[in-house]
Amino acid sequence: MMENNAPSPEGADLVIQGGMLISMVEGEAPLPRANVLIKGDRIAGIDTAGKIDPREQEAPVIDARGGLIMPGLVNAHGHTAMTLFRGLADDLPLKQWLFEKIFPAEAKHLTPETVYWGALLGSMEMIASGTTTISDGYFYQDATVRAFHEAGLRSLTAQGIIDFPAPGVPDPKDNLKVGRDFIEQWRHFSTLITPGLFCHSPSTCSETTLREAMDLCQHFSLPLQIHLSETQEEVHVLARRTGLKPCLYLDRLGLLTERLVAVHAVHLDDEEIALLARRKVKIVHAPESNMKLSSGAARVSDMLKAGLTLGIGTDGCASNNDLDLFQEMDTAAKLDKVYTLNPVNMDARTVLKMATSGGAKILGLEKDIGTIEVGKKADIIVVDLNSPHLTPFYNPYSVLVYSASGSDVKHVIVDGKVLMKNRKLLTLDPDLIMNRVREISRNIAP
Amino acid sequence: MMENNAPSPEGADLVIQGGMLISMVEGEAPLPRANVLIKGDRIAGIDTAGKIDPREQEAPVIDARGGLIMPGLVNAHGHTAMTLFRGLADDLPLKQWLFEKIFPAEAKHLTPETVYWGALLGSMEMIASGTTTISDGYFYQDATVRAFHEAGLRSLTAQGIIDFPAPGVPDPKDNLKVGRDFIEQWRHFSTLITPGLFCHSPSTCSETTLREAMDLCQHFSLPLQIHLSETQEEVHVLARRTGLKPCLYLDRLGLLTERLVAVHAVHLDDEEIALLARRKVKIVHAPESNMKLSSGAARVSDMLKAGLTLGIGTDGCASNNDLDLFQEMDTAAKLDKVYTLNPVNMDARTVLKMATSGGAKILGLEKDIGTIEVGKKADIIVVDLNSPHLTPFYNPYSVLVYSASGSDVKHVIVDGKVLMKNRKLLTLDPDLIMNRVREISRNIAP
Repeated sequence: MMENNAPSPEGADLVIQGGMLISMVEGEAPLPRANVLIKGDRIAGIDTAGKIDPREQEAPVIDARGGLIMPGLVNAHGHTAMTLFRGLADDLPLKQWLFEKIFPAEAKHLTPETVYWGALLGSMEMIASGTTTISDGYFYQDATVRAFHEAGLRSLTAQGIIDFPAPGVPDPKDNLKVGRDFIEQWRHFSTLITPGLFCHSPSTCSETTLREAMDLCQHFSLPLQIHLSETQEEVHVLARRTGLKPCLYLDRLGLLTERLVAVHAVHLDDEEIALLARRKVKIVHAPESNMKLSSGAARVSDMLKAGLTLGIGTDGCASNNDLDLFQEMDTAAKLDKVYTLNPVNMDARTVLKMATSGGAKILGLEKDIGTIEVGKKADIIVVDLNSPHLTPFYNPYSVLVYSASGSDVKHVIVDGKVLMKNRKLLTLDPDLIMNRVREISRNIAP
Repeated sequence: MMENNAPSPEGADLVIQGGMLISMVEGEAPLPRANVLIKGDRIAGIDTAGKIDPREQEAPVIDARGGLIMPGLVNAHGHTAMTLFRGLADDLPLKQWLFEKIFPAEAKHLTPETVYWGALLGSMEMIASGTTTISDGYFYQDATVRAFHEAGLRSLTAQGIIDFPAPGVPDPKDNLKVGRDFIEQWRHFSTLITPGLFCHSPSTCSETTLREAMDLCQHFSLPLQIHLSETQEEVHVLARRTGLKPCLYLDRLGLLTERLVAVHAVHLDDEEIALLARRKVKIVHAPESNMKLSSGAARVSDMLKAGLTLGIGTDGCASNNDLDLFQEMDTAAKLDKVYTLNPVNMDARTVLKMATSGGAKILGLEKDIGTIEVGKKADIIVVDLNSPHLTPFYNPYSVLVYSASGSDVKHVIVDGKVLMKNRKLLTLDPDLIMNRVREISRNIAP
């Protein structure tokens, strides 16, 4: 971090003024009062003593006084357009929820049009709760890319792959072709959009599909997302079919590489955790979804001890039912504490790291995002601290993880562009989008 | 519920206009559009078809159009003034947290003055997140009563009793006298304030203290609060001392009556659950505190099956770290689902019932609050539904428990008086109170 030798603010396009700065750089303490200077899409300088007076400059100013400046949150796993099904089917056993409610609703109601509006709704919710990057896996992803592009969010947008007839891909033998076309269509479209692939799970994709999906991701140097060992049932199904534990099965197929992003990872034994760590597989923890669907609690402390890189994801809105990463961080910390009966391992800073720099590594974007450093992309949020529930203020990490919610986020900047200012969304029209989704939902409602 | 034979609104002092009504009366379905008429401190009528046009009347109108009208939430256990210690000491083992951090901070920094400001801060936070009634147990409770009275909250305010030197009660032998004086001083002060007693736990109060506290509560027909079996350690300590499981020990002392409010109730076996049910003891579930302190997960499904009356409490801000009952409901539902691996028992409506009519029963106030019915006290909140994270809208209970947060509450009415309108607090001055608590916290900060 530059020590007050930041470029003069005359050269800046945007100045964030005067908040406490949490850079999330390893070993860096919070700065009580700093200014952040942005030029184009990147952080051009950090005035660590907050001495520059932006009022004397011509660059637009984001007022962070009395607030906290931090890296935008990275939602490491979601199915954004599933906002369409938020609250449609709750409090049901997972199989009934999935096979009697969600899969039929998807088959009947997903179109490029509905996915587009659902993804716009989710984009609004994410921006309004401080998420600046989303790793999304779903169907009709052209529509999702359009929505993220309009919203101004950064994303890994991954085409869903499952060996059943799926929305937009009625014949599973077209899966890989659809995936390849999707990647080729979007990979040079915008620096904010990284296209990718998302295999539904080891038990719903064939060996061939899994191998070819990984080959494609290797070819394009992209992450491959997959749901792994989310439920005990899934582990049993795969064991009956292959005689192997899920991680050993995927290793036999050559899938356990540093490109693999394993989501959920709830039912793992010690051998599997050690294997994932040796192969440098990335892990996404989705605690609220795992709790709500009665899947179980991932062994997060053990995975951290094994040296694995972890991020946090909200999963889709049908199983959570919101996209608020602040609340997800709170739950991640508390779930580990109650499961391990040890309140120490998942401390607030560790959890915040998972939701920022951890998520960035999972998406392969750690050179550009996840921390506030000169030269990195300007993906920055400001949290308003002037609320009863964030008062008093002893420890910024505790405040952010245990007391703050998404609604405390005041300003959101992605790629140097202001997406939300004083809680007003600048790229999207909330009433238009909510009304359109309400119309769609009238057809979905039972 | 009156079927459109409500008194004409000319007689009303306040009209809540045009929202979906969730009465929480057993067997009543949500009404898509209703008006609620309030006269004085009570609900005078419910216009179940929302036909009365309040614009033609002279009573002030609370606009609930596009929102949801529901009973105010009951926080069934808290230590409100502990907002002073919010985030002071997190991610520590319980014993270290309590004996090295919290007890010393309380001994050093609690005064009637600091308790007053801490309780005002917590009151603001509760009102702003839809809580209308709080069951509080702490020290210097005269100060807490003053704060709740100024805030306009309904409360059971209980004097803390512990057989150690405590804030305001340096000699434990004065405990019961202090408790009796407290009850006598406040029991006729206001219909909003019920004074009571709060015994810290079976292991920190002597047999004599426990017996005398229950005698006093029987005498005044008041609930007696107690922390019960919060940690495994506490169960072991009591077993070593008495040879009995905590519930059997309390039963021997005659404490298991319908006046006893047992808080936490984490480590209970089947025999204890059956005994508590037979004795009609009331239970308060505090899931976020139990998780954050690594205490364990209460057997809520089993207790509901046994017929016990349950409420939900946030506990104090040093162990949670907020007073948002909407988030607490979400956690209560999810924690039970992941612990029992059964997503069905703690459905959204069951949880909402715990936080409304369940809480009312626990405080002995079920004749006056907990549901929206003609003749009951007007303790009502309106939730704003016009937000991305609450869209679309399939099921009101799912929306409230799994998607809403305290910050979605728009209006709050207690005892017929508007405490918050359009998120503006009308009885308290946020800046004044936050600044005073910030000053106090500068002395507390390590």
